[in-house]
Amino acid sequence: MIKRIDHIAIVVEDIDTALSFWRDTLGLELSHVEEVPDQQSLVAFLPTGVSEVELVKPITNDSGIARYLQKKGPGVHHICFEVDNIDETLSTLKMKNVRLINETPIFGTAGKKIAFIHPQSTHGVLVELYELTPIEPQIRMQRAVSLADKVLSGSQVMGAATIAFLKALKNNGDEKNIVKKN
Amino acid sequence: MIKRIDHIAIVVEDIDTALSFWRDTLGLELSHVEEVPDQQSLVAFLPTGVSEVELVKPITNDSGIARYLQKKGPGVHHICFEVDNIDETLSTLKMKNVRLINETPIFGTAGKKIAFIHPQSTHGVLVELYELTPIEPQIRMQRAVSLADKVLSGSQVMGAATIAFLKALKNNGDEKNIVKKN
Repeated sequence: MIKRIDHIAIVVEDIDTALSFWRDTLGLELSHVEEVPDQQSLVAFLPTGVSEVELVKPITNDSGIARYLQKKGPGVHHICFEVDNIDETLSTLKMKNVRLINETPIFGTAGKKIAFIHPQSTHGVLVELYELTPIEPQIRMQRAVSLADKVLSGSQVMGAATIAFLKALKNNGDEKNIVKKN
Repeated sequence: MIKRIDHIAIVVEDIDTALSFWRDTLGLELSHVEEVPDQQSLVAFLPTGVSEVELVKPITNDSGIARYLQKKGPGVHHICFEVDNIDETLSTLKMKNVRLINETPIFGTAGKKIAFIHPQSTHGVLVELYELTPIEPQIRMQRAVSLADKVLSGSQVMGAATIAFLKALKNNGDEKNIVKKN
């Protein structure tokens, strides 16, 4: 069963420039910016209500998301829905001959259990399905520690957002596991 | 302030065909189908969590949405965010030199107070803003009565969905104002 819209992913040419609209002008709050090596992307997370806007910038030239940006320009890349049971949902979809990009779930940002449906079966929309699993909070915490250990360079956004992310985790989680950055 | 994602609008070539995926295969529930003369469209509303998926089919060839479909094919058309004060939000955006399609709010489906931001200012995404006003429930009710009075012909979806819509309103609203269809 579909529970809610988890996030809308927007492909952008540059995270800082995109944030100047979505955060600084429209007023969404930036939770954090995370590098997602599996998707060869840098992702800015902006929660709103029970959902998120994700700004996705390709960091290589030959990923799916990079080709999408080259072909179509910046804009909505996909919609992600939370489901209560992703394996069951995928089985139902397979049974109904839906074209799946992932026939079995993969692990996305912060350990999210996800799978993509091909736009051919959805009438033009790339749809992601996501199930919250008990391991997700643990993986989030591990990633936070790993981020804190990493020497961050380059974009100011990356540094500031990581600090904000760690602060938020520090307030919610186990303080002993967090390496302070400020 | 942005409160949440209100809806994602997906432009489709045919409502029945699109529903065969979004409702019958993916499992979203259809609330109702409504003709929106101002936008020269037929819209199917599929609530999920606190948001909605809206499937929008142009019913003329020369509207903005029809031209979008002709040019880009079916896919995500816009994202709508609920704001607590649309006039205040528009003033802030104008002050920040954001290109607005509607400089003052207009009334959309079911009396929703809305305004669109041009994709030029959002990095490629057509963004709608929406404020819930006290008159919206009244206008919804008036529209339901008007729909019930109308002789519906054509698509089976239109008939079935309207009946479902009226039933839902009947359960929630003033029963005396609703003309029963079944």
